[in-house]
Amino acid sequence: MRAVDLIRKKRDSAEHSRDEIDFLIAGYTRGDIPDYQMAAWLMAVWLRGMTRSELAALTEAMLYSGEVLNFSDLPGKKVDKHSTGGIGDKTSLILAPIVAAGGLFVPMISGRGLGHTGGTLDKLEAIPGFNVNLSLAQFHDVLKKCGMGLIGQTSEIAPADKKIYALRDATSTVENIGLICASIMSKKLAEGIDALVLDVKVGSGAFMKREEQAANLAEVMIETGQRMGKKVVALITDMDQPLGQAAGHANEVAECIDVLNGAGPADLRELSLQLSAWMFFLGERTKSVEDGRQLAETMIASGQAKQKFKQNIQLQGGDAHVVDDPRLLPQARLHTDVLSPSAGYISGTDCQQFGVALAILGGGREKKEDAIDHAVGLKFHKRIGERVEKGEPLATISYNADTRLPEAKALIVDNYFVSPEPPSEKRPLIRRVLGA
Amino acid sequence: MRAVDLIRKKRDSAEHSRDEIDFLIAGYTRGDIPDYQMAAWLMAVWLRGMTRSELAALTEAMLYSGEVLNFSDLPGKKVDKHSTGGIGDKTSLILAPIVAAGGLFVPMISGRGLGHTGGTLDKLEAIPGFNVNLSLAQFHDVLKKCGMGLIGQTSEIAPADKKIYALRDATSTVENIGLICASIMSKKLAEGIDALVLDVKVGSGAFMKREEQAANLAEVMIETGQRMGKKVVALITDMDQPLGQAAGHANEVAECIDVLNGAGPADLRELSLQLSAWMFFLGERTKSVEDGRQLAETMIASGQAKQKFKQNIQLQGGDAHVVDDPRLLPQARLHTDVLSPSAGYISGTDCQQFGVALAILGGGREKKEDAIDHAVGLKFHKRIGERVEKGEPLATISYNADTRLPEAKALIVDNYFVSPEPPSEKRPLIRRVLGA
Repeated sequence: MRAVDLIRKKRDSAEHSRDEIDFLIAGYTRGDIPDYQMAAWLMAVWLRGMTRSELAALTEAMLYSGEVLNFSDLPGKKVDKHSTGGIGDKTSLILAPIVAAGGLFVPMISGRGLGHTGGTLDKLEAIPGFNVNLSLAQFHDVLKKCGMGLIGQTSEIAPADKKIYALRDATSTVENIGLICASIMSKKLAEGIDALVLDVKVGSGAFMKREEQAANLAEVMIETGQRMGKKVVALITDMDQPLGQAAGHANEVAECIDVLNGAGPADLRELSLQLSAWMFFLGERTKSVEDGRQLAETMIASGQAKQKFKQNIQLQGGDAHVVDDPRLLPQARLHTDVLSPSAGYISGTDCQQFGVALAILGGGREKKEDAIDHAVGLKFHKRIGERVEKGEPLATISYNADTRLPEAKALIVDNYFVSPEPPSEKRPLIRRVLGA
Repeated sequence: MRAVDLIRKKRDSAEHSRDEIDFLIAGYTRGDIPDYQMAAWLMAVWLRGMTRSELAALTEAMLYSGEVLNFSDLPGKKVDKHSTGGIGDKTSLILAPIVAAGGLFVPMISGRGLGHTGGTLDKLEAIPGFNVNLSLAQFHDVLKKCGMGLIGQTSEIAPADKKIYALRDATSTVENIGLICASIMSKKLAEGIDALVLDVKVGSGAFMKREEQAANLAEVMIETGQRMGKKVVALITDMDQPLGQAAGHANEVAECIDVLNGAGPADLRELSLQLSAWMFFLGERTKSVEDGRQLAETMIASGQAKQKFKQNIQLQGGDAHVVDDPRLLPQARLHTDVLSPSAGYISGTDCQQFGVALAILGGGREKKEDAIDHAVGLKFHKRIGERVEKGEPLATISYNADTRLPEAKALIVDNYFVSPEPPSEKRPLIRRVLGA
């Protein structure tokens, strides 16, 4: 078998066998197949597509390029959630403690933020001392002790994905449903989980702008997971505006603590409860999703979820006092309001631009090697459909350096859309549930 | 400007500006743009295509990646011919002496053979001592002295093409009309010529199997050359069977000498005269193509073309005695006939397979680094439409090593098609002339 022939095959729209995909992925991971051949193949895949069985083979080849974790010694089902990402999307820090407190195991391997999107690892690092770089043995240990663990992708986990992702980034082959699915699922399935709840975001702040695209990606991921014997459902959820009020790092952690305290923004609380409910149900902890939701509410109301989060922070080297006193989290020195230039109703947002505003203030990465200022953050005061007066704050910016402040302000003002009439359409937070 | 954005642009079917193409080609030639980005871009070009103005920009960018030869001190027009290649295609060694003898300059930069196709350089090296690796100064000198020069691509000529071609070969992005055109034209225009005659082959032994494809490639090359102020015509010519009787290296040189002696196979003689005629006409040596043909015939009949070939061989370090005594060319030790298994009429050939047969006997390269046995050759005794009896020789194989002889024999027998009835269709040697 030769890589050049397999590139030709995909270029000419033919279907690869499982052996052919194994050859490509194993060869590339070992370094026998050079970057340039993989780049040509990825572009051919981008333009020609993959069948479902090619996709399953690709996902498995990437999964088995590294270690697949085995937590079978831990007494209970292992479940996880994956979100395709958005602005203010911080549910992991809420649902992991809820679900672990409820008796399941949550072995969560997360990523970092880039561009307009945030990353769970970066948020966790806003907690002084929190260590996301555990060895797999330490990860196992933390998980065993508290039922949840939150780490970054190690070199043992799906190394093919790591290498292919870097290449896709440099060759404009990122935005492809098959390649996205294989990348996500190979990493998630390496966690050794029994069930996975997908939160597929749709809207102006999401990678998928249209609901059909999101549903399509969801279906492909569900099928891929199910083929490999996992329980998978996907919630298609709204990202036409930020989730919750906070976008940033320290402030998002604080907002999660609010929710664990039984407070916090309604949308964030609702989505966290729904995702937790599905995790309980798929993890066979409850007989129904409704019972799962009941259990999730109990875990919050009883304070058990909050205790679980404290326990986890402590086990991962962080200062658990932040949960009782969020002022211990990094705080910005300066604050300024972004005022509405007109009166009316919020008709929509291009909230991806809010993420860009955050990044240019230092609260996100423009390039991979950039450092993050965890104290920088945005707080949104207005949601779609709400009334706003001229001069009323749309958002508050917390910052430390004002070099690019005017630019950031403009990005927020320009992308909060105000209309004379309230929007007629009501977009639900959870658009659809697929795979159930 | 960033390569990753240009890859995305082509992936999404947008048109590049001239600046964008210059950025890509100059950056890749310098090594600033890595192979993997160029590979992704090439695949996107392969699948999305290029507009005519993108193609013109690409050709120019590749041309000006290196030196463009300047022969303006030589008193006369400079003309060349390029063939897209086939089995037994050896006209360069005939028409260069004819046209140089007729008073024009023929600065010919040629390639080597790979796979089923032969290369002019390899054929020339069948002549003991012949040196195709002249410096550009030596090339100029030879050209000045005898009106013709035959060399290989040097590192100064279109270095972008050399680098891109190697990458295309490894990434299955070879067979694309735009990329083929840019590759050919950038090299040919670097020769500093005034006019170019293209011999675009069509048929079972050609890269282009269908006449429409061949015409399409021809038109694109003509337009590209004309945009750059060159006179260009293309002859679409038959490659459904070998050109002439000989395929190999020493035997092809011998067949060329036959033609220069006024003998040789009719088809080879006819095509050589026609191509020479067009070169004379485009080079403004004659007022019409007919006059050009007359002049070409005179150059053969008078022995001037043959003398010119001897002069060139001598100037390039070769043994010119081979022209008077072709037995001085490398000779194979063994000969065997391939017999027809049935009686009937030759209805067609898959003559690409004859090239494969030659290569596996050592008379061609399977890999770039393979050495060639110049003595190995095939001689074809039957042409399409001719009667053959059972047991009559279809071809004769001249060889030195018999390890793969049965395989080669089978390739010849299996790809000479014999029918009970003579073929009704008559395919002319020259199908069309474009650009005239």
